[in-house]
Amino acid sequence: MPGRVSAFGGIETGGSKWQCAVGTGPEDLRAIETFSTTTPTETVAHAVAFFEREGPVEALGVGSFGPVDLSPSSPTWGHVTTTPKPGWANTDVAPELRRRLSVPVAFDTDVNAAALGEHRWGAAQGLDTFCYLTVGTGIGGGGMVGGKLLHGLVHPEFGHLRVPHDTAFDPFPGVCPYHGDCWEGLASGRAIEARWAKAPEELAGEEEVWELEAHYLALGLVCVISVLSPQRIVVGGGVGTVPGLLPRVRRHVVDLLNGYLRSPALGQGIDDFIVPPALGARAGVLGAIALAAAL
Amino acid sequence: MPGRVSAFGGIETGGSKWQCAVGTGPEDLRAIETFSTTTPTETVAHAVAFFEREGPVEALGVGSFGPVDLSPSSPTWGHVTTTPKPGWANTDVAPELRRRLSVPVAFDTDVNAAALGEHRWGAAQGLDTFCYLTVGTGIGGGGMVGGKLLHGLVHPEFGHLRVPHDTAFDPFPGVCPYHGDCWEGLASGRAIEARWAKAPEELAGEEEVWELEAHYLALGLVCVISVLSPQRIVVGGGVGTVPGLLPRVRRHVVDLLNGYLRSPALGQGIDDFIVPPALGARAGVLGAIALAAAL
Repeated sequence: MPGRVSAFGGIETGGSKWQCAVGTGPEDLRAIETFSTTTPTETVAHAVAFFEREGPVEALGVGSFGPVDLSPSSPTWGHVTTTPKPGWANTDVAPELRRRLSVPVAFDTDVNAAALGEHRWGAAQGLDTFCYLTVGTGIGGGGMVGGKLLHGLVHPEFGHLRVPHDTAFDPFPGVCPYHGDCWEGLASGRAIEARWAKAPEELAGEEEVWELEAHYLALGLVCVISVLSPQRIVVGGGVGTVPGLLPRVRRHVVDLLNGYLRSPALGQGIDDFIVPPALGARAGVLGAIALAAAL
Repeated sequence: MPGRVSAFGGIETGGSKWQCAVGTGPEDLRAIETFSTTTPTETVAHAVAFFEREGPVEALGVGSFGPVDLSPSSPTWGHVTTTPKPGWANTDVAPELRRRLSVPVAFDTDVNAAALGEHRWGAAQGLDTFCYLTVGTGIGGGGMVGGKLLHGLVHPEFGHLRVPHDTAFDPFPGVCPYHGDCWEGLASGRAIEARWAKAPEELAGEEEVWELEAHYLALGLVCVISVLSPQRIVVGGGVGTVPGLLPRVRRHVVDLLNGYLRSPALGQGIDDFIVPPALGARAGVLGAIALAAAL
């Protein structure tokens, strides 16, 4: 279309689905498609076909499930590394997309992409230190400190911190293949399904299920708050956005902190401290577009 | 002395002692004094007398035990806030020193000051994302992300994250007045002394004591690694620097991570990942001098 502003491509790659979009932001999403994650070859081909059809795009941003290699100088930059997802360990994602689409590709974690999206257009606008937590099939976290996306040695992997686990009260051993009862092992959607033998969506209204879930989520968030001191925590994901869960989580966080850290945000202001994503389920793909635009 | 480069003042304020120094860095420390922390009035007067005698200083940096108020716009900026230390809750520290000495005062946590010292002259040179952990009477942590000291909403308080606590194996309830068995409640010097009814320095060579200590320190460090992904962790403090402890901590950290995060630093390279402070017990006061110099 002559005179039209050029567009960017974004992909949020997840362990169960990929979401691809073309546009420049939430008010200008020209195409969006979500499809199931199958084999790496088939899934990448599906994404390539989408951008060939809906493009051209000036650059592509990818927010990926992980762990991933983010080191620009590494021979495996842009790969998914030790994921327990069958068939996906050590998979080339970003370099393959770059070869197939012949555009520059920015690559980060799915949660850092979502954090960037929420920072640019959503619930984290104007903040310089905040976290984005996703609680879905797994648990992941990312965010910004001092206005920059958190990277460090590898990248944050909130899901694998350890939380107290009273096995007398909750004998469930956890589902993490690496750590058993780490945070993700106890509180991810996969853990809920394994503990209660029902999918999270079939457990609506079950007091015991959601109190325990809120308890574990709050224990992990207390670690995040103690280590990073975020100005806000945005909680997304299929489990994280279950109606009624966040108010429980907020209550447990305030109880656990017990007034030690003096900030209105951790008391009366907790409703504005632990919040849902303003961009909903599109935070990741929009953040991926923001990653591309920042290239 | 005519022609001499002007000097900065630094104070590391601790719950048990204060250390004051005048100089420009580790190679130019013109005076240093350590004295016990008594009442706020008496302790501040002691520091003021030191700088009046050893100065003048161009500016003063203070690295303080906490929690503290770091918000420049707050009416209680430069105060210690909810500390459980008797007589010290809600104490004006930095503004009082500024009034008494009539110099600009920079104020941060003791651990952020130590992190800055290690970054400028010690074990964290050239890194942009790392942590400084102190394990002494209490447990505290600070550091840099993207080359800037971590602040956020309040400031990091590593000591109050929650770690798994198997009460069947270790029935000790913890010593934190706010949280009982948080990290500091289980693994600080105060906790060791309360659990074993002996001071840490009387427990040298006690296998059971130091294996349990290393276990708890590693559990907390796994949280720090999962949240921040630091490039290195510098461990100081009277307990943290007990001979033989860090090798045990490193082994537990590697075991707990179980190969999930792929980085040489978290495997073969662990000896260069978890390290003692290069500036030893002077990291804090030297960092305070660096805080003053940066004003």
